[in-house]
This record gives sequence, C-alpha cells and structure tokens, in this order.
Amino acid sequence: MMEGEPTRIEQKGRYLMKLGRILRDSLEGAVPRLVVVQPERECVIDLATAEYQRLLHSGASQEAARRLASALYPGSMSAAIAEGPTFLIAAAHTASSSGEDGSVLLPFEELRWLPPLDPPVMRDCLAFEQHLRNSFKGDLVPPQALGQHYKMPLYYKGNPLTLIGHEQEVPWPDYTQRMDYELELGFVIGYPGKDLTPEQAKTSLFGVTIFNDFSARDIQVQEMMGLLGPAKGKDFATALGPWITTTDEVDMHNLTMIARVNGEAWSHGSSSTMMWRVEEIIAYISKSEGIQAGELIGSGTVGLGCGLELGKFLTPGDVVELEVKGIGVLRNRIGTPAPAGWMPEQRVPAAG
Amino acid sequence: MMEGEPTRIEQKGRYLMKLGRILRDSLEGAVPRLVVVQPERECVIDLATAEYQRLLHSGASQEAARRLASALYPGSMSAAIAEGPTFLIAAAHTASSSGEDGSVLLPFEELRWLPPLDPPVMRDCLAFEQHLRNSFKGDLVPPQALGQHYKMPLYYKGNPLTLIGHEQEVPWPDYTQRMDYELELGFVIGYPGKDLTPEQAKTSLFGVTIFNDFSARDIQVQEMMGLLGPAKGKDFATALGPWITTTDEVDMHNLTMIARVNGEAWSHGSSSTMMWRVEEIIAYISKSEGIQAGELIGSGTVGLGCGLELGKFLTPGDVVELEVKGIGVLRNRIGTPAPAGWMPEQRVPAAG
Repeated sequence: MMEGEPTRIEQKGRYLMKLGRILRDSLEGAVPRLVVVQPERECVIDLATAEYQRLLHSGASQEAARRLASALYPGSMSAAIAEGPTFLIAAAHTASSSGEDGSVLLPFEELRWLPPLDPPVMRDCLAFEQHLRNSFKGDLVPPQALGQHYKMPLYYKGNPLTLIGHEQEVPWPDYTQRMDYELELGFVIGYPGKDLTPEQAKTSLFGVTIFNDFSARDIQVQEMMGLLGPAKGKDFATALGPWITTTDEVDMHNLTMIARVNGEAWSHGSSSTMMWRVEEIIAYISKSEGIQAGELIGSGTVGLGCGLELGKFLTPGDVVELEVKGIGVLRNRIGTPAPAGWMPEQRVPAAG
Repeated sequence: MMEGEPTRIEQKGRYLMKLGRILRDSLEGAVPRLVVVQPERECVIDLATAEYQRLLHSGASQEAARRLASALYPGSMSAAIAEGPTFLIAAAHTASSSGEDGSVLLPFEELRWLPPLDPPVMRDCLAFEQHLRNSFKGDLVPPQALGQHYKMPLYYKGNPLTLIGHEQEVPWPDYTQRMDYELELGFVIGYPGKDLTPEQAKTSLFGVTIFNDFSARDIQVQEMMGLLGPAKGKDFATALGPWITTTDEVDMHNLTMIARVNGEAWSHGSSSTMMWRVEEIIAYISKSEGIQAGELIGSGTVGLGCGLELGKFLTPGDVVELEVKGIGVLRNRIGTPAPAGWMPEQRVPAAG
C-alpha cells in the first residue's frame, strides 16, 4: 500500500449508508434495482437511474450513460459488492448528486422490496447460547450434540434462491403444521479472504441486516435427526432486509433485537449475548474454503427469539416484525397453507 | 403447445451431447469457456469461439459476432442452461458447423478443466441404502437417525464456490487427518419447477456428471453430531466432471461406478441400487421451494464407495479416479496438508 493511501477501513468509513434492492417495471418485465435508502425521509434513490441522469448531465450519450450505469449498479447486490471499494464510493457520489424527480427518488409506499442481497452462499449459525440450550433439550437430542457447539461455531447452509424481502409473503408448505420465526442478524461479507484470523476477518465485513429464518419445526426436527442438517424445514423462505446497513455505522455486538407478532412483542434480546463473535465465525468459515464478496451469514437466533422457546407458533395471516434498533424493521405476513401435494413413499429397509 | 411442435423431451433427444467448461487465457486474465466434448477424438470445441467464427462467415461484423457468441455461450454453464432449449439447439448447430483450427478445436492435453457446472445451489443426498447403513453404525449415531432416511430423501447443502474440476488438486485443510473420497453421481437440473410429481420431475433433468464429495471425516463426524449437518467436513472441495452428459444419452439408474486410488480399484457399484430414484429426489426438493436451472444434486455415495466403508483413508499425493461407464473418468490428486492456522477457542458453558 502506498504511503498516505487510505486503508480499506478508512475508505469504508467515509461511505456509511443503507443499501437495498427493489423491483421496478421495465419494457422486459420487472427488474431488480439497487437503491440507497433514506429511512428518515421514507424514500430510496434508484442508483442506476440516478447515475444514468448524472452521466447525461455530464455530457455522456444516452447509450454510454446506460452502459456505465448498469455496469456499476447491476441488479445483483452481491455482484455490486464484488466491485470492491468502487461500489460504495460510487454509490455515495451518485446519491449525493442525484436529482429528486420521480424516476430517481421513490417513496417507501410505492416500493416492492426484494431481499437486499442475492448471496452466492448462505450460512446460518447457532451463536446464541441461550437459544442453543433451549433448543437442544428433549429426548431426541443425542447427549453429545450440545457440547459440540462449544467447540466451534457450527452452522447449516440455506437456500439463497428462496430469500424473500420486506413485506413479501411467507409461503406455508403443505408438509408443516408448526410454522415459526427466528430473530437473527444477517452479516454480509464484503471482501474475499481465506484462512483469516479474527482480526483480519473484521475488515471482511460489508454490513449487517435483519434475518428471519422461518422454520417448519415438525419437519426440521426430523431432518436434524437424520444428521444432514435442516433442509425443507428452512428452505421454503428466509426473510432478509429491509436493507443492509454498512458495517461502520454500528457495533455488531451491541444491538437490541425485538420480534413482534401482530403488533405484540414476543421476543427481546441483544447481540451482546453472542457466544461467538462475528469475526470468529468469519475466520472459522474462511478456513481452507475461503469466503467471497456477497456471502451471507446468519447469527443464529437470539435467546428466546422464536416461538419454539416460548411454546407458541404462528398461524396463517400472522404478521411478523423483526426490529433491530438502529437498523430497521423487517415485516412479513404468513401465507395460507399450500394444498397437499406429492409426498415420498416410506421405504422398507432391506433385510439383513 | 401447438400441434406438431416437438415436446421438450423430443427437442432434447435430438441434441445429445457432452458439455464442459475450461479456462482459456484472454487479455484480461484466464476466462471460463463452455465446450462441447468429443471424448472419442480427445478434444473439445470452444463454443463461443466457434460461434464467433460461424457468425463472421455468415456476414456478421466482428463486434456483432462477439456480442452474440458471448450472450449465447457465457462462461457460466448454469447461465447457459437457463436459456432453455435454445442452448442445446444452438450448441449442436455451432459444434456441427465449427472449423477445426487451433483456436476452436482444443486437444485434451492442453486443457485446464473447470467444474462443468457453477450451480446456484448444490445438494448432496444419501440415496444408497448400503452406504447409509455402513455409515450410520457406531455408538455416536442416535438410534432414530437411520430410520429417518427411509421416510424421505434427506440431503445436506454444499458450497458451490469450492467445486473443482477434473485434474484440479484437492486442498488438504489443516483441521483434518482423515481425508476420504466419495463415489457419486451428480444430477444437473435443466428446467425450473415447483411442487412437481416424480413423473413431471423426469423432464426437469438436464444431465449427469461424476461427483466426488471429498470428506474430512474427523471434523465431519463432529459437525453431524451438532445436528446442523456437515460443513467444514465437506466444503473445502467437491470435484465435479469431467463433463456433463445430457440426460437422454443414459439410463440414470443403471450406471456402473468405479473408484480407483493410485490405479488400484477400491470401490465398485451401480446406480441401480439407489433407494430413491432421481425423479423422486427432485420432486421432493421441489416441494414449496422449487428448483432452478443449473442446480446440482449429488446422489450420495454408492455402497462401499468411500474409504470409510473400507477402513482405508487417503494420503497426500494420492490420485483418485472416479469412473462411471459411458460417462467418463474424473481424476484428482490430493494436495499436501495446509500449515496449522487459527482455530476457535473452546467455550465454557454458562452456569445453570
């Protein structure tokens, strides 16, 4: 690094912001667009459109302005994050010089939110000890299961293709009667790395968001007993959003977390109670396999942050709000149960 | 569908082929390229270059030929598969009209293979009963674990970013002393779908390849005991290839599978012994969450298809070859152990 050149962290520190993704109509159907969010004004700036207009005003041709704007601000947040510091620097520039006309500045009430991230890989940890102990009770749990979680930050991998955004409806699969929410943080990786120490891992973080790991408890338990980890019990929908807050705006380990169901507070917690710090989790994941820009890591559920721990479950039509103070509120309505479909036929073990 | 129009299956049936991905040098570093493989001639056709030349000969400008060729044949196989039937129809046309000069037709000995697929999601099942029973022995396995696998086709999700191709070296993480291979098939999804029946799921399949689910057994066991499924025990490397064979060329449930270590046959099996048929697995996965073009599903290990079942393990420098008759041979050398890095510090459970 050249003398006087700002470090990666210093660069990021100058570009604190909230970033999201929305759907907008185009000539070829609805398209995802990256936005800078201004919660205090309840509006967003469409980055590609704002940059297109900025370039036009600077003398670029329409074709050149479109080409540059869409290269800088693709529909994919993980592709934008993979641009490195260029993305945040450009977004700050675009947003600060953007006009206020209706094609650029969009009020919250007109938005169709998408999950703010389309990660190439998505993991979910179990980093809160209270949730771990509450969840690993019962006769079905083998005696050595709990102890394993004190040795390393374990996680399962989710399906990034079934992420949903703020205000999107949660599908209710035909195979569950026990629908639950989980109050979590979502950590977004900004820079690639491999075999990192926790100290190095700190600078890999891009931002934080709210993560609702909706869970079909009946099938999840069966899957976990099969020892390959949850799958259908989680992969029907994971809510993320409403936006990503860049890292330097917040202390990741001192966030107040609240879950409300139909307006009633069910869960309260704090990220100060995590058993593994986020930089330890990232360092562990980075061992041998490495991490890439745009990956998503769930913290795991905060203590008492789900219905399972409270002896309560969700019903169709319920509205679940997860709030993280200083970050935002992620709201989703639970859909109606799907009609019964095909199910696999039980196999008979071979003799012997 | 209009009368006389070919069905999806008929269209595919006319375009049987083997498709792979290789790395080629460009002005901006090495780039992935899609290829049609001709194993009998031991060479491949670079589709983008062949199509560029075909378009030039047809009267297209250089710029137009480059633009069209790279749109049709991106570096991503999953992006190409997402084109639908257009991709296979075009690839057959491009390959059949391609020249034989050195920029298009490349001999095997000059190739740097990539994994033939870059899937958005990757799952791995446990569909062979013999492997299931051999692996689920021992005191650590809870009594209900085995039975769960007779109820539904369970799977874990892998890390698609650590797939490696034919002849790529397998990294040996610092956290393992027990390196193993797993002899599996890899099924590639061609068409999106949701809540499919097995009959419908049959037509979702694009092709089959060979899948070596390299495993760090010592940490894998610990992770599975934590009930979130394997992670670091699998995610350092999964080998895939050497190419994808389109579905209609083969009977998925009658394939002979062989593993050799340093030339010595260790494992023999057949896909006829799968407890779940591939269309049942796809139908099950498609429930509620759906499937997308380019997804990858491992069959799970064929009976006696890994060292764990044979009481043997791999050592650095070993060469593992997986052969599936009629499909190909996937060969990988095991690397040397990485130097010891940072490891998480054991936590002490809170009192109470």
